[in-house]
Amino acid sequence: MDFSSFLTSLGTSFVIFVILMILFALLSSKPGNNVVYYPNRILKGLDPFEGGSKTRNPFSWIKEALSSSEKDVIAMSGVDTAVYSVFLSTVLSILVLSGIILLPVLLPVSATDDGRKKQTTSKGTFNELDQLSMGNITAKSSRLWAFLIACYWVSLVTFYLLWKAYKHVTLMRSEVLKSPDPKSEQFAIVVRDIPAVPEGQTRKEQVDSYFKAIYPETFYRSMIVTDNKKVNKVWEELEGYKKKLIRAEAVYAGSKTTAKPEGIRPTNKTGFLGILGKTVDSIEYYNEKVNELVVKLESEQKVTLREKQQNAAIVFFSNRVVAASAAQSLHAQVVDHWSVLDSPEPRQLIWPNLKINYFGRELRQYIVYVIVAFTIFFYMIPITFISAVTTLNNLVKLIPFIKPIVRIKVLRTVLEAYLPQLALIIFLALLPKLLLALSKLEGIPSESHAVRAASGKYYYFTVLNVFIGVTIGGTLFSTFKEIEKDPNKLVPMLAESLPGNATFFLTYVALKFLVGYGLELSRIVPLIIYHLKRKYLCKTEAELRDAWSPGDLGYGTRVPNDMLIVTIVLCYSVIAPLIIPFGALYFGLGWLVLRNQALKVYVPSYESYGRMWPHMHNRILASLILYQVTMFGYFGVQKFVYAPLLLPLPIFSLIFGFVTAKKFYPAFQHPSLEVAAHSLKEVPNMELVFRSFVPPSLSSEKIEEDQFEDALSQVSRSTQVSRSTSFV
Amino acid sequence: MDFSSFLTSLGTSFVIFVILMILFALLSSKPGNNVVYYPNRILKGLDPFEGGSKTRNPFSWIKEALSSSEKDVIAMSGVDTAVYSVFLSTVLSILVLSGIILLPVLLPVSATDDGRKKQTTSKGTFNELDQLSMGNITAKSSRLWAFLIACYWVSLVTFYLLWKAYKHVTLMRSEVLKSPDPKSEQFAIVVRDIPAVPEGQTRKEQVDSYFKAIYPETFYRSMIVTDNKKVNKVWEELEGYKKKLIRAEAVYAGSKTTAKPEGIRPTNKTGFLGILGKTVDSIEYYNEKVNELVVKLESEQKVTLREKQQNAAIVFFSNRVVAASAAQSLHAQVVDHWSVLDSPEPRQLIWPNLKINYFGRELRQYIVYVIVAFTIFFYMIPITFISAVTTLNNLVKLIPFIKPIVRIKVLRTVLEAYLPQLALIIFLALLPKLLLALSKLEGIPSESHAVRAASGKYYYFTVLNVFIGVTIGGTLFSTFKEIEKDPNKLVPMLAESLPGNATFFLTYVALKFLVGYGLELSRIVPLIIYHLKRKYLCKTEAELRDAWSPGDLGYGTRVPNDMLIVTIVLCYSVIAPLIIPFGALYFGLGWLVLRNQALKVYVPSYESYGRMWPHMHNRILASLILYQVTMFGYFGVQKFVYAPLLLPLPIFSLIFGFVTAKKFYPAFQHPSLEVAAHSLKEVPNMELVFRSFVPPSLSSEKIEEDQFEDALSQVSRSTQVSRSTSFV
Repeated sequence: MDFSSFLTSLGTSFVIFVILMILFALLSSKPGNNVVYYPNRILKGLDPFEGGSKTRNPFSWIKEALSSSEKDVIAMSGVDTAVYSVFLSTVLSILVLSGIILLPVLLPVSATDDGRKKQTTSKGTFNELDQLSMGNITAKSSRLWAFLIACYWVSLVTFYLLWKAYKHVTLMRSEVLKSPDPKSEQFAIVVRDIPAVPEGQTRKEQVDSYFKAIYPETFYRSMIVTDNKKVNKVWEELEGYKKKLIRAEAVYAGSKTTAKPEGIRPTNKTGFLGILGKTVDSIEYYNEKVNELVVKLESEQKVTLREKQQNAAIVFFSNRVVAASAAQSLHAQVVDHWSVLDSPEPRQLIWPNLKINYFGRELRQYIVYVIVAFTIFFYMIPITFISAVTTLNNLVKLIPFIKPIVRIKVLRTVLEAYLPQLALIIFLALLPKLLLALSKLEGIPSESHAVRAASGKYYYFTVLNVFIGVTIGGTLFSTFKEIEKDPNKLVPMLAESLPGNATFFLTYVALKFLVGYGLELSRIVPLIIYHLKRKYLCKTEAELRDAWSPGDLGYGTRVPNDMLIVTIVLCYSVIAPLIIPFGALYFGLGWLVLRNQALKVYVPSYESYGRMWPHMHNRILASLILYQVTMFGYFGVQKFVYAPLLLPLPIFSLIFGFVTAKKFYPAFQHPSLEVAAHSLKEVPNMELVFRSFVPPSLSSEKIEEDQFEDALSQVSRSTQVSRSTSFV
Repeated sequence: MDFSSFLTSLGTSFVIFVILMILFALLSSKPGNNVVYYPNRILKGLDPFEGGSKTRNPFSWIKEALSSSEKDVIAMSGVDTAVYSVFLSTVLSILVLSGIILLPVLLPVSATDDGRKKQTTSKGTFNELDQLSMGNITAKSSRLWAFLIACYWVSLVTFYLLWKAYKHVTLMRSEVLKSPDPKSEQFAIVVRDIPAVPEGQTRKEQVDSYFKAIYPETFYRSMIVTDNKKVNKVWEELEGYKKKLIRAEAVYAGSKTTAKPEGIRPTNKTGFLGILGKTVDSIEYYNEKVNELVVKLESEQKVTLREKQQNAAIVFFSNRVVAASAAQSLHAQVVDHWSVLDSPEPRQLIWPNLKINYFGRELRQYIVYVIVAFTIFFYMIPITFISAVTTLNNLVKLIPFIKPIVRIKVLRTVLEAYLPQLALIIFLALLPKLLLALSKLEGIPSESHAVRAASGKYYYFTVLNVFIGVTIGGTLFSTFKEIEKDPNKLVPMLAESLPGNATFFLTYVALKFLVGYGLELSRIVPLIIYHLKRKYLCKTEAELRDAWSPGDLGYGTRVPNDMLIVTIVLCYSVIAPLIIPFGALYFGLGWLVLRNQALKVYVPSYESYGRMWPHMHNRILASLILYQVTMFGYFGVQKFVYAPLLLPLPIFSLIFGFVTAKKFYPAFQHPSLEVAAHSLKEVPNMELVFRSFVPPSLSSEKIEEDQFEDALSQVSRSTQVSRSTSFV
């Protein structure tokens, strides 16, 4: 890629960005689009246009984002989002601090060296951008000292800022956890691996007597985990029919105003997908179904609570410190009995995973690791195979009715062009979901933990395949035998092919932030979908609300993608310092956009109080180590005899990682007692705490009201084993 | 070594054993020797000859040992000794179960093969014992299948018995820990890394307010750790002079009966070692010194408690469960502040190590590991150097006054013969102490933990140097370059040189148990020392008691030595099965002797409630893996194509180790709450619990009595910072 095509590509991206910004400015000022641009504020019951600037100028969102504080972010979008913001600002600071030194020093040093120029121009591969990179320096030149010192500078800046950020996040986490507003999950622990029920006891009695003996004063109550698969299905079915009923009623009411005054009663078919079967009156039919399912749900709830109890429980304590301490103490003499962990939020609990026993979890983890490793390294094999098989001719044989389509020449050409890559595209689109499903298979008990695990896997996938894959790229297969012979050659080979790809990655980063953030901020796609749904599908308030529901930030894919940029920018920071401003723009703009989206758009679907941070920290560090090792290799390629002076850097990084993990990580794993001991605003209503953990499919409406307490104690007084025994 | 010299060596050992047994039978029946043969019973206030058999027969101790139960051992000598006994019986069972199958199967298989015989007899290195070993099998012979299956059998037997033993020890530990008799250390935790004292608070107030906030109801009191170096020195000096005073008085009293009726007042010189200086009346002089030091001690105690407080404390709780839970919970948001651990027994606490901070401990650990690794691998270098330098001629130059000694020809010959090895002998004798000192340097807080750490280091030393060293032995240096070229060659080389050394190790094991246990049981050396001391040195009761004080078992060296035997016997079990009965005898006799010594002789100096077990378990497993890897190498040497079938074995061992570590180890690291929650016989006297932790040098006699509580509260009421403030 030469300089002019680089500028063209950059220019195109910039034009798209400007268009998207203009669209954003125009669309977001229309009140009808408020639910797309301010859903978080609307859901929190706030006025979308806070600060009163009704006459919005296109840049007012920037002012608002800049003037917002971390407290605002925590209040509007939780600690996790604030931590993500810390991540973006930390990387931004690393790049700015590095750039301040590297750009004015390294660019002139490269540009004024003309030793390499003569060699390369003759071959015709030289271009203007490469002149500003380390590749332009004469081999063995003493100018390389500047680059070597630059490596140290970047590393030191990273260490310093990561340390500061870890400290800051630790404090942020503790501030929120010590808040005087009690959170349900702070009073509960999850108990797994409960041994078999002893003769003559119920599971409930077993758990209660065990914990009452250890915590005679603070044990409040326990909830046995049940197998809710069937009851959930019934409940979902019921909810579905309830929605359909409301919709049918809305349609009926609507028809009264639009068609005839007595209205048209909507009908539907009962068979497959509402296409087949006999036609019935919808309202009557759904009403019938709902009544049927209410009875079914109730009996299923009874069966579940009585017969589907499993070897796990949630145990409640009336004291925050005791719960925090209990969550990290060894209870039984052997570890695979009565193992405990601090409870996540109720909405995060992955109930089906709770029953998996200790060594089952360990085993699943290793199996999943192996599967993921295979996926990362060998995913191209099945995809190549599928691509080879799914030619148009094969497809026509399998699905004969697409024959007429294939006959159209234009379509055929397009299909033939994209079909080979179709398998890859589908694979890449499904990968995050696949990795999340794999992470859940490990037996992880909470949603946020599964997302973190999936995000880690995705990081390795992107770094290995995109960064290393693209860099070594085509040369890999030709030199594969060389690497096989001597795996140590990977690093110098990676280093050697680095400078050639600098322009590619420069364009990649620019495209990412210009088009990516443009789309993110302008929300063109959700806007179109919302308006289409509103016009043609939604009949009820609830449906409309679903249509604009913003969802959450999606850390699982967002963080690994950012991490890829971190890796790219760090690795090129010294080789081609021109990438630093691009990286800084990516993270600067990213920070701004995130502030806007966090304050106004996304609604977090869970809160893990910043547990994401140690993972982000470790991955920035991993990228740093990759950069340091690559630089060592590249200095070797440049035949610089002082290259071994770089060797202490990866060792420092490892020690740094070790120290931070030892010092800060445990407070992210367990609640610290110092924090839990902060006094509460009020004594928590333990009944509410307990009920917040009852899954919706099991919370019976009959005992919903104030008699709840009575109903329970009444039942518990009776001797028969009834539904409520597993809760009392 | 040929067969007859093997028999001679065995015979000699056996004769020594018989003589020692006869001596034991004779000497132990004399009442005057009771304090040497029954000190543990005497110290516990029991009749030495329980069971009434005054007319002892030489084998009655065997009957007594066999009829004693594990409960007796725990009662007389603690859990640690019982665990050691489990270790011996487990290894014994492994060997017996292995031997039952291996001996009748493998010996005939080897003996009837004559393929190798022809080759080796021609070279003249063949002997009768080798005929019974795997070395006698023709290469590639299908007879090797029997040996391969034998490897599996030994491994499976080991897994099964280790699992059973771990379970048993876990139960034993929990039984003792849940005992209704409260133990002081169960109510205390050790707190380290206390942050700097905030402005306007004392260290005491800081600690108290911190823990009171977290445990408002169960926090009892805290004790700040002080730098006791100086006060300990004064206290020891005082105790020394007190002893000397009593001795002088005893001498004076004695002289009244033996010399003249008015007695001779003993005198001594005040200078260096009592040789120089002016002569004084001992009783007066010591009296004066004692009075002087009592005053000095008191003022030093005040200074220590007031000014030498450090960043560590012992915190007491009035509840066993809370203490157990507190010891394993994260207290502060960062780990290197307020780090906690469950308290060891007061007598085990290594006070000077408590103040070392978190990362200091980590750093020290790694430094010590490096030093130990160097010691293990390169200890021969300085010793060779010292041996080379310390020739007689050099010594004469350095210490001219030994010249006359050197002139005597006989002495000169002896000195010249032993001097080269003197450095090695001294080094080996001092090694356990050196390793213990190194372990303490790591910052380990308790004596038993330090002993375990030292024992681990000693294990690696013995296995690497004795076993691998002797086996590869002389060939190592000649083939050193080969290993350097290809380190993978170590295993086949080790395997190749194994069979040749079978007889050496057979003799070694026999010598160890015949002579070693003979000496151990007959206690000839302590007996002689005791009688010499009694006759010539001891003047007072206390001195006499010191003379026969039996000390403890000395796990630090005993366990690694046994482990060496385990390693040797396991590694040879299949190659030369004849070693199995010797090993079985070693551990059988060892178990018997231990029972006798535990019940009658040794007094444990600490109790760690079986924490030694996981270390023993892991090392048996390490020996098993060494055996499995060696066997794989040896089958390779035998050119057996199915040798790779052995590869799963080390993998199984690693998984087994992983599973046991996960399942059982945590209960040895931390007290489990289930166990701590068992009800107590009585509410513990917290004052006594607290005072049991006060070091003897700091427990002032003035506040010893009942007014202790008053004195303390009185002082704490006053505002001045006085001695007791750090305790209240």
